Amino acid sequence: MRVAGLQTAGTPGDVAANLRELDRMAEEAAALGADLLVTPELFVTGYDIGERLFELAKENPLPAVRDIAVRRGLAILVGFAESTEEGLYNSAVMMDRDGCEMLRYRKQHLFGELDRHFFLPGDANPETVSFMGVRMAAMICYDVEFPEYVRATALAGCELLIVPTAQMEPFTFVAREVIRARAWENQIYLAYINHDGREGNTRYVGNSQIVAPDASVLARIEHGDGLIVADVEPGLVARAQRENPYLEDRRPSAYGSLVSDTRKERA
Amino acid sequence: MRVAGLQTAGTPGDVAANLRELDRMAEEAAALGADLLVTPELFVTGYDIGERLFELAKENPLPAVRDIAVRRGLAILVGFAESTEEGLYNSAVMMDRDGCEMLRYRKQHLFGELDRHFFLPGDANPETVSFMGVRMAAMICYDVEFPEYVRATALAGCELLIVPTAQMEPFTFVAREVIRARAWENQIYLAYINHDGREGNTRYVGNSQIVAPDASVLARIEHGDGLIVADVEPGLVARAQRENPYLEDRRPSAYGSLVSDTRKERA
Repeated sequence: MRVAGLQTAGTPGDVAANLRELDRMAEEAAALGADLLVTPELFVTGYDIGERLFELAKENPLPAVRDIAVRRGLAILVGFAESTEEGLYNSAVMMDRDGCEMLRYRKQHLFGELDRHFFLPGDANPETVSFMGVRMAAMICYDVEFPEYVRATALAGCELLIVPTAQMEPFTFVAREVIRARAWENQIYLAYINHDGREGNTRYVGNSQIVAPDASVLARIEHGDGLIVADVEPGLVARAQRENPYLEDRRPSAYGSLVSDTRKERA
Repeated sequence: MRVAGLQTAGTPGDVAANLRELDRMAEEAAALGADLLVTPELFVTGYDIGERLFELAKENPLPAVRDIAVRRGLAILVGFAESTEEGLYNSAVMMDRDGCEMLRYRKQHLFGELDRHFFLPGDANPETVSFMGVRMAAMICYDVEFPEYVRATALAGCELLIVPTAQMEPFTFVAREVIRARAWENQIYLAYINHDGREGNTRYVGNSQIVAPDASVLARIEHGDGLIVADVEPGLVARAQRENPYLEDRRPSAYGSLVSDTRKERA
């Protein structure tokens, strides 16, 4: 299964322009043989665009995304602001080339005031779905920085973790190094797809990458807009997990406080 | 508080020679102003030395370690094979300059046949003790590769995690990168002190390092024998944990499977 990631500055606050870019890059990704194209977090609207986000989120972009997936003949996993009766979620949806919604995820770990001003936290863990023989799941940006959350997703059988993100300065270390550690310690593939450029006071660090279970970098772009592409082999995950049997060698009885120490969550 | 780490090939299988080296390096560390000297895992006997380990472990090295700590006027945290009625543990003990035992830890996550042939797994999590204003704990080698275990230790208040290790080829990525991710994701200090050189078929990767809560490398030695030294400021941990509030932003209700997915532990 070939996955492509679109790193881009996008056009903050201009949904129509972003959907045109998605269409153009979906065509390009399909020409590269990609089966799945992934965008950054909140690609459809932009992220640090102020109060306009509430207004722009009202129109549902998913029919347009579905059309692009069908027309270009590949699956698309897109980050967008999901409008519901109770409020907005920072979400990701995957549409396959037949126009079927394959997964939907709402960011659970909200990042600072930027997230909390706009979004409600999701309350469901990433669902693991099978796509062309690969068991994949999605989480968003800050979520992946919590090793216990990625571990829970790996324990649920995820082989490829897709992470649309909006990682900003000064967190280059997260984009480059923490992501590789997450792949290594779970022996899974990880695709971390970021914005580049600037929105308001936020300067993004780029450094989108697709990493293998042995932490090797299959594809990476430092700065600038563009596609990265890599092939995912599911058999390789099983082999890596046998060779470095972290999942087998865990001592769950030693980890009780991860669930019982609730601190802020009570608040 | 100044911590020193001794990276060394040691003298595999020769306890007297290793204790002489410890004495010499304790003198050197004290001259550098160190308050605490840390050795690699199983420094006293060596690690991959075959069946001799059972014989060498019979004699308790701790009185000699205590003498060195008192004579050289600094605390020592040493890796050794701990002999008990039920069998051997892969352990670490810390003696302070007054000759008091401050902590004892038994490795819980055993690594492959090399560990399992000789050692029983410990069944207690790292204890957090206060030393010169720093709350510190110890774990051993493979333990630190489990992010959930380090997280549990950080949640217990640890500010400086000491990790005697015997990290071998081909795991340079763990020594260099995973260790920095562990410090970063918990915003704690981490001292990872390794063997260098070769024992039997095992070639160690060196790369001992002391890392700050922002993942910056305070001290590192790639290959060769020698001391690394760094200062630990406890106030800095609290500040780092406020600035990157991972511990506060956790969603414990999402992590249930880390405790309930017991797999091998049942066996």
